[in-house]
Amino acid sequence: MTSVLDSTPPQGGVRLPRVPLVNPQATDRMWQLLDSKTKPPRSLGRLEELAVRFGALRLTPEQAVTLPVSVRKPVTVTYRASVVVAAADHGVVDEGVSAFPQSVTEQMLLNFEAGGAAINALCKAAGADLIVVDVGTKRQDPAENSLGAKEVEPATTRVAVPDISPVRDCRVRAGSANMTRQNALEPSEVQQALNLGLDLALELDRCGTTVVALGEMGIGNTTVASVLTAALCGATSSEEIVRLVGRGTGVDDAGLQRKRHAVERALSLHRPDPNQPWQLLCQIGGLEIIFLAGVAIGAAAQRMAVVLDGFISTSAALVANALSPDVKQYLFASHRSVEPGHRLALEKLGLEPYLDLQLRLGEGSGAALALPLFAAATAIVNDMATFESAGVSGPVAT
Amino acid sequence: MTSVLDSTPPQGGVRLPRVPLVNPQATDRMWQLLDSKTKPPRSLGRLEELAVRFGALRLTPEQAVTLPVSVRKPVTVTYRASVVVAAADHGVVDEGVSAFPQSVTEQMLLNFEAGGAAINALCKAAGADLIVVDVGTKRQDPAENSLGAKEVEPATTRVAVPDISPVRDCRVRAGSANMTRQNALEPSEVQQALNLGLDLALELDRCGTTVVALGEMGIGNTTVASVLTAALCGATSSEEIVRLVGRGTGVDDAGLQRKRHAVERALSLHRPDPNQPWQLLCQIGGLEIIFLAGVAIGAAAQRMAVVLDGFISTSAALVANALSPDVKQYLFASHRSVEPGHRLALEKLGLEPYLDLQLRLGEGSGAALALPLFAAATAIVNDMATFESAGVSGPVAT
Repeated sequence: MTSVLDSTPPQGGVRLPRVPLVNPQATDRMWQLLDSKTKPPRSLGRLEELAVRFGALRLTPEQAVTLPVSVRKPVTVTYRASVVVAAADHGVVDEGVSAFPQSVTEQMLLNFEAGGAAINALCKAAGADLIVVDVGTKRQDPAENSLGAKEVEPATTRVAVPDISPVRDCRVRAGSANMTRQNALEPSEVQQALNLGLDLALELDRCGTTVVALGEMGIGNTTVASVLTAALCGATSSEEIVRLVGRGTGVDDAGLQRKRHAVERALSLHRPDPNQPWQLLCQIGGLEIIFLAGVAIGAAAQRMAVVLDGFISTSAALVANALSPDVKQYLFASHRSVEPGHRLALEKLGLEPYLDLQLRLGEGSGAALALPLFAAATAIVNDMATFESAGVSGPVAT
Repeated sequence: MTSVLDSTPPQGGVRLPRVPLVNPQATDRMWQLLDSKTKPPRSLGRLEELAVRFGALRLTPEQAVTLPVSVRKPVTVTYRASVVVAAADHGVVDEGVSAFPQSVTEQMLLNFEAGGAAINALCKAAGADLIVVDVGTKRQDPAENSLGAKEVEPATTRVAVPDISPVRDCRVRAGSANMTRQNALEPSEVQQALNLGLDLALELDRCGTTVVALGEMGIGNTTVASVLTAALCGATSSEEIVRLVGRGTGVDDAGLQRKRHAVERALSLHRPDPNQPWQLLCQIGGLEIIFLAGVAIGAAAQRMAVVLDGFISTSAALVANALSPDVKQYLFASHRSVEPGHRLALEKLGLEPYLDLQLRLGEGSGAALALPLFAAATAIVNDMATFESAGVSGPVAT
């Protein structure tokens, strides 16, 4: 549990947890360890960089100190992965910005619950828990549809993470308002969504999660992410918007034109200030993005690795970074999305993805596909012999 | 068991099994299946391409036929992965081409057996079996060192694949001769190494393997792979050799110069003919590369996916392709190695890797890191719901 001493003064009505700085000695210790393993030094390339970053953020301060070999405790890293998929609806779909009808958000929640979506299959393949949270869709009351024979729970209720999760009903409201015409959310709704994410991170930590992957579902949310990315990266000119806005799940040329107009109208209505992120979130939304920013901040505070998926979860990372810049040390990019704004957001965060598979699905799919790299990095750290222990000769001088 | 009818006329003293052509209807059937799943069409990018290729080569002719929906049998694909690491020594190390002493080949075999190498850790992380085969190292007789209390078995003995394999002693000879001064191998040794690989593929098929990853260990083998790649890709000019030869496990500038000279001397001594692959293999070797070419041909004949690692296993694929061109359909590149000749070999085979992690270790490490993509592709094919079964709406016309 985060104590008051571990948190910063309240901002925007929310008390954010303090994110610990990664100890440079921990990074040195990890490189020493990897360079002692039976392989040509650095020959596992970016997998070693990942292992060092992941290991360093998991090391306790005691483990991080570079002690003489004789008194060192062995370093081990634990890999346990959870994928969090947050869902919400967006009033901006009224502008005709998506290739799919808004009802698909709800239909896909049912599909997640039945285990039939891509992210279900990918979590199974990666051995990761899947937690799906409805932060604010427009779906029917769960008591009336097949999602819930269960009662609607208050949004702040916490449930222990089960192996197969039903969709958690944490709806803050039934979809955001249309950001091209008015503010998307009330300040209290922004606070609530962020707190729900912070709470989930604490719960994941209690359940032993060390790697959390961020995914989302919400028809219209690439339009919202485009506005947030434009605002937080300072790319708000017409030319920059043309370069930044992509086809999302696959709009045609006319839809792409409508999407660009919607982004321009939202920016000219609100003239968002990147230094006022709380205000920005009220203006633009969206609930699932704010929730994921909360998960990222809360997870970083508990020293978890936070794995981003594509454009939308990376826009959530931009939001988290604007609220709490030390979060950046805990972020890992998984893949490079085909969505053009993703590149801009990754550059702003200083992240280089591991995969380039031309994905454009969302749901956390790319993040889930990168999780085996964390499992592999963990195995390298924990299981490989050293040159000394295995009696293998090092490189020879020539 | 391959019957005489399933094999081609003997070449170079070896009867190669016939490699079946992948049925174009099977490819169509796989695309139809994936396009029916609950995701925007093709939104999983290259993972879908992998799923289609892998699925199509595993489909039986009956499954491949596009029947009316009512009478179709469901398509499922099985993922079971084995990593084969072949080891041998090379006389060319006398030319000072490696950063590591030749004794490291033997030391690393002991490390594989003890479970301390990178490939042990990566196989564990990927849930893959590991089979290490000594095709011709210079190590001491196993009866005299810690590798074997067991008897030395004749090279053609087959052992059932266990979960944790001791290194298999299938030594054809104690390292090849120095290709810069004489032929590396006798024709009978080339035949023996290739047959051992073909036999292992049959054994893997009997054990249920559907994906086989190719790895290797052998101090000096990037020099051998450089000559094979230069010969088989027709890149034998001095300028091309400078571009093709890399630092392997990390030679310094002087070592790199010696390595280039060794490649040039081997090419000018033998003047290898890419249309005479059997002769080329006698001239250049090496035993682990020929063995892996045999595994690739044998695995393709049994409709397994063959996953290449870096430069050396890809040179084995070039050899396999020269002997049996239909093998190409069954090959998958895993990662782009930092070794410069790897790009040339991949282009020749028409393969595009999935990972770019700046690896230069070998041992099958990059191939093992790509195996989770096959697990993920399998899960997508087997587990995802269709739009119809899940009641999810498709894209709307605008």
